[in-house]
Amino acid sequence: MKWLQDKTEQVILGSGSPRRRELLQLMQISFQVDKSTSEEVPHSSEPWEVVMELATQKASEVADRHRDGNLVIGADTIVALNDRILGKPADEAEAAEMLYALQGKTHQVYTGVCLIRQTGTEQQKEVFYECTSVHVAEMTDREIADYIATGEPLDKAGAYGIQGYFAPFITGIEGDYYNVVGLPVHALYRHLFGTKK
Amino acid sequence: MKWLQDKTEQVILGSGSPRRRELLQLMQISFQVDKSTSEEVPHSSEPWEVVMELATQKASEVADRHRDGNLVIGADTIVALNDRILGKPADEAEAAEMLYALQGKTHQVYTGVCLIRQTGTEQQKEVFYECTSVHVAEMTDREIADYIATGEPLDKAGAYGIQGYFAPFITGIEGDYYNVVGLPVHALYRHLFGTKK
Repeated sequence: MKWLQDKTEQVILGSGSPRRRELLQLMQISFQVDKSTSEEVPHSSEPWEVVMELATQKASEVADRHRDGNLVIGADTIVALNDRILGKPADEAEAAEMLYALQGKTHQVYTGVCLIRQTGTEQQKEVFYECTSVHVAEMTDREIADYIATGEPLDKAGAYGIQGYFAPFITGIEGDYYNVVGLPVHALYRHLFGTKK
Repeated sequence: MKWLQDKTEQVILGSGSPRRRELLQLMQISFQVDKSTSEEVPHSSEPWEVVMELATQKASEVADRHRDGNLVIGADTIVALNDRILGKPADEAEAAEMLYALQGKTHQVYTGVCLIRQTGTEQQKEVFYECTSVHVAEMTDREIADYIATGEPLDKAGAYGIQGYFAPFITGIEGDYYNVVGLPVHALYRHLFGTKK
């Protein structure tokens, strides 16, 4: 299925994240932002189920306000360390606890994406997710404290942003880098415009 | 060996690349830019030898102007597809040829880094490199033409920038993302400030 015929079609990004906005701009499509406001609570437990469920809740809420056939994109990103799911830390103490857990280990970042086109009462929907493995270096107490002092951890799943001052502590990744930032750019592009041939 | 005692020491980046400047800023160190101007010609043939040789040529040229004990960082990045080394394309035709070669395949990006501290006639030097594998999606003729029209390919090794409009065509990477952008941020950070005990 190909969701867009060309790059001039209007798209609605159902996320207030400035990072997701920048990533969508890399696809050179025209879009507006209408972010979801409800506090999503997942019922599922596996990380890929959680991100697809939350992305769907976000997209559904926004699509309900746009029944004109415009495509709505919802997304949700979480960090999974072994069986534990890390969302956004509530405060600096929780951020520190998350960073201590992540340092010296490999974790997974899941981003779920939900595409919804609502025309009156008719709805088309597609949901998918992408997983990227991230290797974090061992960090000293000082390095963790200094990183928290940058203020970056508080609004980010897993208490870090791969594109900011945490960069020196990422030894490497496997998979789509942009998926860690907040959108699986390649996978989303192919869902929107189809594959070659 | 640990090159810097703390983040207030003055460092000189021997590269005019705005991307390398942004990456060095992620380490929160103070630095100035003094770019190398000579046209480097490598004598070696293996990609890791080439990037270390060119990074050393750049750092040496700049260090020669700074014999005051300040650390100079030189870097060079190339793309290697099988046995072929891709530098910056000379024109749009060569850019197109490179992109056709890269699409649908996995290639390697090598960045070499040379650190030099010159105090009078005494010199300390260290050279290393990092390799990242990059998987590129199959692309249509139209997608390649559209990407060339963005103007991004011309000043970039392998005719693409991973951080720009080429993002939708990167299916994934293995290794340090920033190494593909132009500096192996983690490895450089550890060389500068040492590893955790």
